Amino acid sequence: MFINFYLYKDTALSILRTGVICVRSRPEGLIMNNLLDPAILFFVFGAMAGLVKSNLEIPAQISRFLSLYLLMALGLKGGFALAQSGLTTQVASGLACAVAMAIVVPLLALRILRHLVNPYDAAALAATYGSVSAVTFVTAVQFLETRGVSYGGHMAAAMALMESPAIILAVLFANSLKRREAAGTTAAGAGTAAHPAAASARPSMGKVLHESLTDGAQLLLLGAMLVGLLTGESGREAMQPFSGDLFKGMLAFFLLDMGLQTARNLPQLRGQSPWLVAYALIAPLVHAGLALGLARLAGLPLGDTVLLMVLSASASYIAVPAVLRHAIPQANPSVYFGLSLGLTFPFNILVGIPAYAALANWALG
Amino acid sequence: MFINFYLYKDTALSILRTGVICVRSRPEGLIMNNLLDPAILFFVFGAMAGLVKSNLEIPAQISRFLSLYLLMALGLKGGFALAQSGLTTQVASGLACAVAMAIVVPLLALRILRHLVNPYDAAALAATYGSVSAVTFVTAVQFLETRGVSYGGHMAAAMALMESPAIILAVLFANSLKRREAAGTTAAGAGTAAHPAAASARPSMGKVLHESLTDGAQLLLLGAMLVGLLTGESGREAMQPFSGDLFKGMLAFFLLDMGLQTARNLPQLRGQSPWLVAYALIAPLVHAGLALGLARLAGLPLGDTVLLMVLSASASYIAVPAVLRHAIPQANPSVYFGLSLGLTFPFNILVGIPAYAALANWALG
Amino acid sequence: MFINFYLYKDTALSILRTGVICVRSRPEGLIMNNLLDPAILFFVFGAMAGLVKSNLEIPAQISRFLSLYLLMALGLKGGFALAQSGLTTQVASGLACAVAMAIVVPLLALRILRHLVNPYDAAALAATYGSVSAVTFVTAVQFLETRGVSYGGHMAAAMALMESPAIILAVLFANSLKRREAAGTTAAGAGTAAHPAAASARPSMGKVLHESLTDGAQLLLLGAMLVGLLTGESGREAMQPFSGDLFKGMLAFFLLDMGLQTARNLPQLRGQSPWLVAYALIAPLVHAGLALGLARLAGLPLGDTVLLMVLSASASYIAVPAVLRHAIPQANPSVYFGLSLGLTFPFNILVGIPAYAALANWALG
Repeated sequence: MFINFYLYKDTALSILRTGVICVRSRPEGLIMNNLLDPAILFFVFGAMAGLVKSNLEIPAQISRFLSLYLLMALGLKGGFALAQSGLTTQVASGLACAVAMAIVVPLLALRILRHLVNPYDAAALAATYGSVSAVTFVTAVQFLETRGVSYGGHMAAAMALMESPAIILAVLFANSLKRREAAGTTAAGAGTAAHPAAASARPSMGKVLHESLTDGAQLLLLGAMLVGLLTGESGREAMQPFSGDLFKGMLAFFLLDMGLQTARNLPQLRGQSPWLVAYALIAPLVHAGLALGLARLAGLPLGDTVLLMVLSASASYIAVPAVLRHAIPQANPSVYFGLSLGLTFPFNILVGIPAYAALANWALG
Repeated sequence: MFINFYLYKDTALSILRTGVICVRSRPEGLIMNNLLDPAILFFVFGAMAGLVKSNLEIPAQISRFLSLYLLMALGLKGGFALAQSGLTTQVASGLACAVAMAIVVPLLALRILRHLVNPYDAAALAATYGSVSAVTFVTAVQFLETRGVSYGGHMAAAMALMESPAIILAVLFANSLKRREAAGTTAAGAGTAAHPAAASARPSMGKVLHESLTDGAQLLLLGAMLVGLLTGESGREAMQPFSGDLFKGMLAFFLLDMGLQTARNLPQLRGQSPWLVAYALIAPLVHAGLALGLARLAGLPLGDTVLLMVLSASASYIAVPAVLRHAIPQANPSVYFGLSLGLTFPFNILVGIPAYAALANWALG
Repeated sequence: MFINFYLYKDTALSILRTGVICVRSRPEGLIMNNLLDPAILFFVFGAMAGLVKSNLEIPAQISRFLSLYLLMALGLKGGFALAQSGLTTQVASGLACAVAMAIVVPLLALRILRHLVNPYDAAALAATYGSVSAVTFVTAVQFLETRGVSYGGHMAAAMALMESPAIILAVLFANSLKRREAAGTTAAGAGTAAHPAAASARPSMGKVLHESLTDGAQLLLLGAMLVGLLTGESGREAMQPFSGDLFKGMLAFFLLDMGLQTARNLPQLRGQSPWLVAYALIAPLVHAGLALGLARLAGLPLGDTVLLMVLSASASYIAVPAVLRHAIPQANPSVYFGLSLGLTFPFNILVGIPAYAALANWALG
């Protein structure tokens, strides 16, 4: 049985490989080509191992280490690039576009999602889709580097800038909602203890602000960028074997873990409304399209445009859910966490990144 | 006191070093030469640190990370090699030999061990010695690479193939044993509740099959091989700094931990029958000899032959004990785990690998 | 708000950078220059992230892995260097100086500190300042390598030699103190149960000796050195990508964590006597000065002199506090741990190392 199984598999592989090589030579096979990247293949493999319920597991501390490593390496990369390019007007317009998208996307999301779900879930989803996913961004950086497309080092700062605004907007909205509800209760009922209770349930805006601005991931990214900017070429040489050469392998290992987690998270998607499922797959395209339009207006170069599209299209599944759990406790985590990690993340990794790149290439080319 | 101690040690070192260099120049000093490998020396050092009860400890999560890394790197290595060599008849005969050994070794082990221990322990030991040790295999791969002996990339798949058959055979045997015992009880006694209890104690074969076929280590090895096979040369270049250059250092770090664990496991060996101790040291030689004969018949090249010998000689001390604990709960873990990690593993690492290589060299040369 | 904030910061950065480049070109700007090292900058960044109470956190297991890695790499580095240089009289005099400093520093510290704190705290502080900090040493090694200053591989052994004497002296002193106290109690009171109780409270010297001589960090350092010494050039080549190329990056990551820990440890300093604070900043300079004098007498070369100064100036904050907690339970951990990690460690990293190097350069040049 074993021999047959494996010989059969080997044959299948060689057919698959041949097919893949054919695709490779056609320039339009960008998505299939993306699937031949080792890091992406480890993501697919991890998802499959998770689906057959293998006992394969990456310790949580290792997963944390890998994500810290990726942020540090990404920040350094950006900083070294900025040290070389200097702070130009292109840098300024790239960052301005990022901030604009970080405000437009959550407002748009809130507007649409209020028709699909209750207002608390809508606020939580708006925060999730308005913020960004670092892993998706890192994967896109790797995608561009493999294809020799240059991009600005400041786009790492753009990512850091895009993390918080959506959270702050969503919490402001949820708080005003609670205030209105509390007022409604007071007006309708005797208005005794309802008011103070509502006030105490409302999380302090200061705490949310502090948390979203001192978030470790964001700080590490900006800190590493600063280190890169200050140490420049000599720093780059010293750190290259660690933060440069190892980058791809560490990303592959991390995406293996993301695949496992995505598969384990799939049951959360069961019973979700088909509208939400559609949203998780269509919203990224819409946000990427808006980013493309803005980038064209601002005259961003190709690499920066693709990264802005990816950032706008991605949804947070680490930082934002952690904040939301106590900032908007009324929202259902399986909705915002399930959609963003279970659908939007794999969609962007497998299909989105190459599609946005092709689109940008066509629009700016 | 300190100066004397350290000066004395330094003198001793320089004598040891001189002796070692003499051995080096004689080609027959293969075992001594093996002991000069940094990775092997870290194993010896780890064992010594464990014996003097040092508080040196590698966190369990790091140990897990290193073993996942080694499997991933090994699989990639194999996949990249296969992508270059293609799937030849040599690949097929190598894999066929592996499967044959994976069936012959546990059956032979079971036959011999039934005279030495109770049948449950015999089944558990047969599973342990019939399956393979990934770390021993990785160390052998490193041994061949250092000496410039080429080997087929498919041998990583051979290892994956050899993991499960012994477990399945052993569990089948243990289940038939339990059925017979239950029947005996029924015949002798009143035959009331004995039957259903025995049936419920018998672990479901489906569960054992699922566990041993979706075992994380095995899946990761095969998955990484597949990634290597699909991405070929471009994948190799991207992953080289991570899975290639770092390999030796990560193996050294991991073997340091294995040395610590081996030393800590030694007390389990106390009070074991001398027959079992002899078995743990002689069986590897017998299994390696059988593998050598089969490899010669099948016409395998030198590198593949050495790896087949190492795989046949090695005993599992991670995957199999984990499955056995609930698949054959009647067996005593300190017997199968103690012998395999405490004796057979260090024997193979320190003496076995160079001895098998010398033997294969002599037989095929 | 965001744009302003970031644009402002970018401007500030570019000013800072320009200033820093000016400093760089002046040779006397050694301290400022040290601050431009990526590893040191990550330490500063970590401390800042800790001060703003960011949730940035390195898992304890990763921190442990990094410190084990650094010790292993440092030991290998030393061993490879020794294998090349051989065991010369310079090696012997370097080690002798190290042992002398390891005895002089704690005795001096004890003499001074008895005037500042109670005798138990004095003993604990003497052990802490008499022993050494591996991270400070590693940072100094990196400092020398970046500046192309050569040093002897045996200085890693010197560090290992300097770890224990201070602990042993301090525990001997604390034990004699307890004996005297117990005798006083016996003479004054009825002399019933006091004596045996005091004896049982006294930690067994054998246990302390065993612990401080088999301490994992020290053993790993010496073991890795031995491995390096035995495997020589071929070992160096095999381990280079792991223990050489990655060194700087891993140190940067580890110092990031040290920065976080230093910041979190700062509250322990509140309420300490200003004399102690002064001691934590002046003692390193005095100890480094003594080391410089001794090194000049013994004719040590520049690199070894700087490392001896750094070792003498550094204070333990990992190994010694762990031993002291049960060896001298009467001492207050927030005093010895707080001063050594909160003040002396950052002082040495940021100011001390470049200052000692400048001093040695001036004295020996």
